[in-house]
Amino acid sequence: MSLAAPLASGATLVLGGARSGKSRFAEGLIEASGRPAFYIATAEAHDDEMRRRIGEHRDRRSGLWTTVDAPLALGEAITAHAQPDGAILVDCLTLWVTNLMLAGADIPAESEALATLLSQPLPCPVVLVSNEVGLGIVPDNAMAREFRDHAGRLHQSIAAVAMRVTFVAAGLPLILKG
Amino acid sequence: MSLAAPLASGATLVLGGARSGKSRFAEGLIEASGRPAFYIATAEAHDDEMRRRIGEHRDRRSGLWTTVDAPLALGEAITAHAQPDGAILVDCLTLWVTNLMLAGADIPAESEALATLLSQPLPCPVVLVSNEVGLGIVPDNAMAREFRDHAGRLHQSIAAVAMRVTFVAAGLPLILKG
Amino acid sequence: MSLAAPLASGATLVLGGARSGKSRFAEGLIEASGRPAFYIATAEAHDDEMRRRIGEHRDRRSGLWTTVDAPLALGEAITAHAQPDGAILVDCLTLWVTNLMLAGADIPAESEALATLLSQPLPCPVVLVSNEVGLGIVPDNAMAREFRDHAGRLHQSIAAVAMRVTFVAAGLPLILKG
Repeated sequence: MSLAAPLASGATLVLGGARSGKSRFAEGLIEASGRPAFYIATAEAHDDEMRRRIGEHRDRRSGLWTTVDAPLALGEAITAHAQPDGAILVDCLTLWVTNLMLAGADIPAESEALATLLSQPLPCPVVLVSNEVGLGIVPDNAMAREFRDHAGRLHQSIAAVAMRVTFVAAGLPLILKG
Repeated sequence: MSLAAPLASGATLVLGGARSGKSRFAEGLIEASGRPAFYIATAEAHDDEMRRRIGEHRDRRSGLWTTVDAPLALGEAITAHAQPDGAILVDCLTLWVTNLMLAGADIPAESEALATLLSQPLPCPVVLVSNEVGLGIVPDNAMAREFRDHAGRLHQSIAAVAMRVTFVAAGLPLILKG
Repeated sequence: MSLAAPLASGATLVLGGARSGKSRFAEGLIEASGRPAFYIATAEAHDDEMRRRIGEHRDRRSGLWTTVDAPLALGEAITAHAQPDGAILVDCLTLWVTNLMLAGADIPAESEALATLLSQPLPCPVVLVSNEVGLGIVPDNAMAREFRDHAGRLHQSIAAVAMRVTFVAAGLPLILKG
């Protein structure tokens, strides 16, 4: 099975664990389409470890990509850069949830607004990457539990409106929907 | 694919992470059958957070449901409420394991007894929800490791006798068995 | 579906969580083949809990198995014991990564060397078991994050060259590849 399945129209959610190859799989979906793409990055480099991880992701991508930073205003960035014949990759939703929590935002409302945007006809394919974080032991830390709840509910909302949902493990896809 | 697949006879195990939509998926299986159902709750509200979570689950369910509390005597509750034309939802096995640990019970023996009960012909479908908790980093805490071991072994025992096993991620089912 | 699917030639990667039944599933693959097998153990018993876990795994296996310890020199052990008509089980890769970290080894280089070895024609089937550890909350501990990164990257490398990759949950297999 080729990792370079044809890029679905509408929204595609790519879920996976840490270092599961989910970003690379999502990039592969878009690169195989040959479309010029916007990479919408939600990451903010708070420390050296984050700066290194962001740099590694950036170095891997080819010249087809234009990077846009959207730590908070994700829906606006998708709307602004969705062009016919283009493509959008959002990497990743879990960092967006983290940023929203740090900013004291209304996360259920933000999640609902993103799901509503993605449920409407989109000018181009939008692939969203996110970390599945709910399959370990319940965290001791109340904020980590809250984060896990927000992320899980967001995944359910986006999965419900997405045309395709893929779970990636060890770089390999399992189709959940589509 | 409809979430409302026909309700299998015998036991169905629904595994998933935190906020994966596993309870809602399990409720959907039973509600689609139109059968009056017993909701066997293993949760005990030790604090406000738990009370809120239990309340959210309860508010979501329709009037078809009768709630029964069974923090420890789960097999007895299943036997007492299994009626022809009815259905049973157990939510969830991981909280039952937690309660058994706090009560100092013999968990391998309790797990074996539940698997034996579920391996026998049942008067009605029984759907059991549980958290997959073994896919994160090994916990520092010895009790958390012990819990994780008990939960994992219980899942294997129940899955071996269940007619159907489903893994739920982002509200979407992956069929493991059945 | 029988757990005893025919044993594929080449490398098979069996991923799963703690107490998911992944080792038992992998052993079943090899036992069903009837081939005499080498069990290459990467575990080192640092404490009583580890000694107990190793003993449980060892007690479960039948007389067809010869146990070989390879906490660090895994590739050498595979090469030394790969014989036509035989079979090899490596249990598990995540403990190998832990041992390499404790020894201060160059883990990307070691991972690459193992993937290269497994990508070449092998005299007999080699089944490798590993823990998926990347599906929980980001660990607080920097060493745990580093371990999680090494394990995830190794899984991607091995999965890319393996003939078959299986994810095991509750003792049941999901085919990722092959």
